[in-house]
Amino acid sequence: MTKDGRAVTAQSEDFSAWYNEVITRAELADRGPVRGTMVIRPYGYRIWELLQEELDRRIKATGHQNAYFPLLVPASYLDREAEHVEGFAPELAVVTHAGGKELEESVVVRPTSETIIGEMMSRWISSHRDLPMLLNQWANVVRWELRPRTFLRTTEFLWQEGHTAHADAEDAMRETMLALRIYTEVARDVAAMPVVPGEKTPGERFAGAARTFTIESMMRDGKALQAGTSHYMGTNFARAFGIRYAAEDGRLETCHTTSWGMTTRMIGAVIMTHGDDRGLVLPPRLAPYQVVVVPIGRGEEIAAAAARVAERLAAAGVRVHVDDRPQHSPGYKYNEWELRGVPLRLELGPRDLAAASAVLAWRIGGEKENVALADLEEIVPRALDEFQDLLLRRAADFRAAATSAVDDWAGFRAAAADGWAAAFHCGEAACEQQIKAETAATARCVPNDAPEAEGTCVRCGRPSAYGKRVLFGRAY
Amino acid sequence: MTKDGRAVTAQSEDFSAWYNEVITRAELADRGPVRGTMVIRPYGYRIWELLQEELDRRIKATGHQNAYFPLLVPASYLDREAEHVEGFAPELAVVTHAGGKELEESVVVRPTSETIIGEMMSRWISSHRDLPMLLNQWANVVRWELRPRTFLRTTEFLWQEGHTAHADAEDAMRETMLALRIYTEVARDVAAMPVVPGEKTPGERFAGAARTFTIESMMRDGKALQAGTSHYMGTNFARAFGIRYAAEDGRLETCHTTSWGMTTRMIGAVIMTHGDDRGLVLPPRLAPYQVVVVPIGRGEEIAAAAARVAERLAAAGVRVHVDDRPQHSPGYKYNEWELRGVPLRLELGPRDLAAASAVLAWRIGGEKENVALADLEEIVPRALDEFQDLLLRRAADFRAAATSAVDDWAGFRAAAADGWAAAFHCGEAACEQQIKAETAATARCVPNDAPEAEGTCVRCGRPSAYGKRVLFGRAY
Repeated sequence: MTKDGRAVTAQSEDFSAWYNEVITRAELADRGPVRGTMVIRPYGYRIWELLQEELDRRIKATGHQNAYFPLLVPASYLDREAEHVEGFAPELAVVTHAGGKELEESVVVRPTSETIIGEMMSRWISSHRDLPMLLNQWANVVRWELRPRTFLRTTEFLWQEGHTAHADAEDAMRETMLALRIYTEVARDVAAMPVVPGEKTPGERFAGAARTFTIESMMRDGKALQAGTSHYMGTNFARAFGIRYAAEDGRLETCHTTSWGMTTRMIGAVIMTHGDDRGLVLPPRLAPYQVVVVPIGRGEEIAAAAARVAERLAAAGVRVHVDDRPQHSPGYKYNEWELRGVPLRLELGPRDLAAASAVLAWRIGGEKENVALADLEEIVPRALDEFQDLLLRRAADFRAAATSAVDDWAGFRAAAADGWAAAFHCGEAACEQQIKAETAATARCVPNDAPEAEGTCVRCGRPSAYGKRVLFGRAY
Repeated sequence: MTKDGRAVTAQSEDFSAWYNEVITRAELADRGPVRGTMVIRPYGYRIWELLQEELDRRIKATGHQNAYFPLLVPASYLDREAEHVEGFAPELAVVTHAGGKELEESVVVRPTSETIIGEMMSRWISSHRDLPMLLNQWANVVRWELRPRTFLRTTEFLWQEGHTAHADAEDAMRETMLALRIYTEVARDVAAMPVVPGEKTPGERFAGAARTFTIESMMRDGKALQAGTSHYMGTNFARAFGIRYAAEDGRLETCHTTSWGMTTRMIGAVIMTHGDDRGLVLPPRLAPYQVVVVPIGRGEEIAAAAARVAERLAAAGVRVHVDDRPQHSPGYKYNEWELRGVPLRLELGPRDLAAASAVLAWRIGGEKENVALADLEEIVPRALDEFQDLLLRRAADFRAAATSAVDDWAGFRAAAADGWAAAFHCGEAACEQQIKAETAATARCVPNDAPEAEGTCVRCGRPSAYGKRVLFGRAY
């Protein structure tokens, strides 16, 4: 509890403190002993598992196969792609000793797997018949973080990384956009996050990519969070690792590759997209418990009725939990499950039972209402769908209200202070740097679906690049 | 192909060569670039995913929750449990540099997670109401291997590791046996491996455990493979990490903990339990493809009919694949899918189609037979069940034939040369060492369900320990 009796600090008071308190008190995660690492507790890990299921299903349905590549990569592999090693060298964890001896060649803990997968693809691909090669891996990666934040920037995180090889640029670009579409849909339909898919400016590209695409989401403090990225690598890695194939006419050609990833940072995104001053608010499709049943009073009859309700809801496909802890009052439980973001609560007391009803309470957006026990299988799934829609609508409204199209520097500064600015930009890296230095805002993306338009750069007045407005904002 | 035209070396000729060839040619795995690491290819990884699903479901159904703990552990954590560090120190991979600097304290890549989970449990557990704490983690671990063998002993492997804390020894032992029962069932009912559950002798215990239980399986070369272990830790780790709770009477008590793991070595076990001279033989419940449909001839009608058959089987819950590669003959495909261990094959040619039938071929144990297309939804799932049962029965018969109860040293030597010896043993570590030195056989386990019996030690003649016969064999 905070000093004034609230479960967590108010978002408006200190968003960062609010975030950390929600994570700890909702038992999502703890800090690990090694700097920047995290322990994902069961309640947080279940959110990840539910996201994994949704993502994995879509990845497989589009023809990708899961595989597993080694954690440990020879340090020399990273050197083969110049931009890649430059981007990752400062973040590497290096194993120098193993099996009781100093190693002859140091190995690094993978920060991402382009290099080792590139090496293996070069062994597996020989003919055009081997293409496209569509692989995905669920794994942990390590990038040493100087300013760690749980879920958002951690020394170790979990993710899936898709890696694919194609005969030509066109097929590889189709794949790059397919992955971006999967991410957009999962963010929207599962996490209730109305993300903006778009392309990164050259200065924000992945180290070694020819083009980087992203889905950008807005947090409730107006900052942006990159929630997934999809990269077209051109032939950069294929040349570095010799991924070549014999075309139908027998000529040896170089593959075009892609990679794309979504990580445990999505859990942080969900917290900051939907949470409020009472704590976490979970979209039903990611909620470990979609409904909590709180029996009121200790009678055996009530306990049996609560168990029966839970059984019926579980049979209807609802993730339900009965909080029958004898040591806590109903009020205590209400607060705790609100803090932990459970979408719906069913209160079941003797009077309710006598009336064959229960009290249904929404975490947000609904009044308490009496519902007939007989109709629960119908009412609860419908309420969960409505709750899911409500969160998406609410987040979309929030983002719309906090995004401004601006054409002058004063307007840009005001918009980027607590939201996003949609502005024309000249496309020069130095000008982007200047904007960042003055406002802390960076180019988040050139939105795929923004209307075509031309103008002058909001900072320097030169003609705009990209053929449309660019989204700028401060970011996690 | 081998010199005499077979796809792989015969088991009887060189079992080890056979094993390696099956792995490579069935595209299960490749060697990784760092010594002892492996790349699990999609076909091998799918077997792991299917095993994971079965195991994870049972782990959750018995009240355990998944969580995730950091890969990197402070080196000092391992020092806290004396036997544990002694057991693992020679196998550790040590990160000494990270983020471009030398670290002040070295961190190790987890070889197992007792220490970090012990540390976190000590923070999370305060009251008897927090117990039992039942956690499980799916993760990778690293143990530097001097004599690596794909799937069996690899520098990095994948596993689940259960870690639980309990109020007393009785509850912890119940948990230890529960995990062993889950492993026994998964091995038997999913992998068709008739394992022997039993207890390890003191010399074969996990480093830091009070008691270690195992499931031992017999490979087709007569050697044993430990396919899963479950450890009762007593209070060893709870004392080392301060995992204590306030009992109902307010007194501070020390927890009793357990841990238990099953790994990607199970894939190696499946290969060596069921494979034959034509390659891999997969139990249907772990087969990425349970049925392969091979269209004969290139007509559009055949292609459409094959697709329709596959659709119907998929709808009936069968994992089915149509091999429609135009560049290969049916015979080539038959050989390839036999090598890759697919349980059933459906051949579909113009004459079959005209007769509204197909030819069903079993990977082992059945004659080719004509089956009516109309009945496939009934015939195929039944054949898969029969195939699964057949593999289990065959493996049980093989093990029974290769296991001998022996009471003299000559008999022991003969039995342990190509199978298992069930013998009385004195229980002395020195005597076990002597047996190993002379025969390469080790005590695999004291089987849980062996009848009570006493005798004299097969090696030294002293009175038997354990109250029953001990299983000895050479092992992977």
